[in-house]
Amino acid sequence: MAIRLYELAGADPERRFSPYCWRTRMALAHKRFAVETVPWRFTEKDALPASNQGNVPVIVDGDRVVHDSWTIACYLEDRYPDAPSLFGGDTGRAAIHLINDWADRILFPTIIRLIVIDIFGGLDARDKDYFRASREQRLGAALEQICADREQQLPAFRQALEPLRATLRAQPFLGGTAANYADYAVFGGFQWSRVTSPLRLIASNDPIHSWCEKMLDAFDGMARKTPGYPV
Amino acid sequence: MAIRLYELAGADPERRFSPYCWRTRMALAHKRFAVETVPWRFTEKDALPASNQGNVPVIVDGDRVVHDSWTIACYLEDRYPDAPSLFGGDTGRAAIHLINDWADRILFPTIIRLIVIDIFGGLDARDKDYFRASREQRLGAALEQICADREQQLPAFRQALEPLRATLRAQPFLGGTAANYADYAVFGGFQWSRVTSPLRLIASNDPIHSWCEKMLDAFDGMARKTPGYPV
Repeated sequence: MAIRLYELAGADPERRFSPYCWRTRMALAHKRFAVETVPWRFTEKDALPASNQGNVPVIVDGDRVVHDSWTIACYLEDRYPDAPSLFGGDTGRAAIHLINDWADRILFPTIIRLIVIDIFGGLDARDKDYFRASREQRLGAALEQICADREQQLPAFRQALEPLRATLRAQPFLGGTAANYADYAVFGGFQWSRVTSPLRLIASNDPIHSWCEKMLDAFDGMARKTPGYPV
Repeated sequence: MAIRLYELAGADPERRFSPYCWRTRMALAHKRFAVETVPWRFTEKDALPASNQGNVPVIVDGDRVVHDSWTIACYLEDRYPDAPSLFGGDTGRAAIHLINDWADRILFPTIIRLIVIDIFGGLDARDKDYFRASREQRLGAALEQICADREQQLPAFRQALEPLRATLRAQPFLGGTAANYADYAVFGGFQWSRVTSPLRLIASNDPIHSWCEKMLDAFDGMARKTPGYPV
């Protein structure tokens, strides 16, 4: 039986843009599960299966409901140890936890300031008021104002990616010779940008760009099939 | 036969302060090697065994000379697979590579701007001119000026450590239930500060503080025995 995944979608229901949901989608593909995705909007709090925290990803696996991308990854790894490993063991999981936390607390909050006006532009009409109010409160300014000088912010953003760039110069994936959850945890942020915004976050000669292309190619081009812009 | 480790030292030869050398010292202790340390100053380029790149750590293991903290960690892991593992396998190594690169390229360059005047103060007289000239060129200002408003920079520094703090709330060590090279790669930066500067980088109620105390306790208090200030 397929695992059901509730995924954030825009006005175009095929435009699945949540960085957290992309982590889960890649993890499910890595584990070789059949997946049935359900498009969901921010304001459809009642449409999610219990229990949840009012946001996605949420998965339904038989009679189990699991939410939160990290919790889902750990659930899949522990419940299905014979499927390809997301972490490569306990020490891999522990180190990837920090990489996941870096993406959550440094990378994604930086990316949102570059693309939030475009995320807003692609939302379903029902979600726009909610999104504007909640994000303007969180980010402390009007969405238009946050992104007004984004071209000027790009060099500092790219500079802050030096650790990622250095590692990807030394090895093909964050997982080493093959992608694992470290890659999915970080790539979610770049896919979020690709799906929502025409802004080119990464220069085309950057090793991070080549790595993004490989992630878009993974699983028969799964992430590339979602409508979006060039990386 | 003990492994010989060339370590950066200050005017007080017991004041071993390099963050990179601390990584190696902790890694050698983790692998349970007897170690013979040799104090070294920045300007003693000719005192290092060939081949090297004019900086430390450098280790001599029998007839092998290995330099660069990451290269040394990989050398020890591959050469001595039966000693306790630094990485816990290939996927652990791959993820820890990114953590190591984050420490090198984000954490340490931020810490140096907070403590560089104190590093200078503790240097051997022979090293002072070299250090001031090279660091003022790299950092773009006089050492005194860089640290002038460091108290005001502390909140932003502590905020940038949110990923580390989140992970250490979820698990006792970056390595999971026990410390591994992920911990040593990052801790080197805090030990660098502790040995050189009275500035309290981390608030005493921060999970990062408790973790630093555990790292200072490790290996019979090895890191704590080096002269320094409270964390």
